[in-house]
Amino acid sequence: MNPTDNQWLNKVNWSDTGLVAVIAQDVNSQVVLMLAWMNREALARTLETGEAVYWSRSRKKLWHKGEQSGHTQKVHEIRLDCDGDAVLLKVEQIGGIACHTGRRDCFFLKLEDRQWVAVEPVLKDPAEIYHE
Amino acid sequence: MNPTDNQWLNKVNWSDTGLVAVIAQDVNSQVVLMLAWMNREALARTLETGEAVYWSRSRKKLWHKGEQSGHTQKVHEIRLDCDGDAVLLKVEQIGGIACHTGRRDCFFLKLEDRQWVAVEPVLKDPAEIYHE
Repeated sequence: MNPTDNQWLNKVNWSDTGLVAVIAQDVNSQVVLMLAWMNREALARTLETGEAVYWSRSRKKLWHKGEQSGHTQKVHEIRLDCDGDAVLLKVEQIGGIACHTGRRDCFFLKLEDRQWVAVEPVLKDPAEIYHE
Repeated sequence: MNPTDNQWLNKVNWSDTGLVAVIAQDVNSQVVLMLAWMNREALARTLETGEAVYWSRSRKKLWHKGEQSGHTQKVHEIRLDCDGDAVLLKVEQIGGIACHTGRRDCFFLKLEDRQWVAVEPVLKDPAEIYHE
């Protein structure tokens, strides 16, 4: 690849640990699905493959979202914010489930009277999603 | 305040530096406005005041969004994600401008042919927003 092709990656304001925060939003429903992280390689692969590839901070490796569950995210748009330290992906969420708990999205805990209440249904049993 | 009242703050998975990533989404249009950070006090104040209060990592102090510009964010909902390290605020964006560049939202740079292109108009000159 021509080095010039990577100029766009240099515009990202990578953190000290080489990461950028990434919001995935459903391109159709506009629901905010999740927040995850990417390193340079993850963002490059996301563009190349057209599917969201994140950096797993817990497993310390690239994470092709949906590689196990089949719940991949087809990327329609990649946006960067004004100071370059956050990315917004507009995606088509395959299977309609973004969260490992089997819910549509990860933000299912709503603050009500100083308590976090799960307000979204589990659409599919995680045991069924992540079977061997 | 009764210590029990702070239990909800303990459920947040604060980072090593005591912060949590916060996405602000327009409650009406569903547009993702910005990504910012909160510490424990910022989140507590956000709930108490009903307006978004962030932690400015650059200025290292609490930042009542809109304190200078008047573009405050009225909070309609506070959500927490599955692993507790990201918050989603559903807000009414006063003035219709979230970004310091005078745009509706901060994610105005769209990746097109490996170039970041500003695709959203400046609604108000920042010099006019931040006049003395």
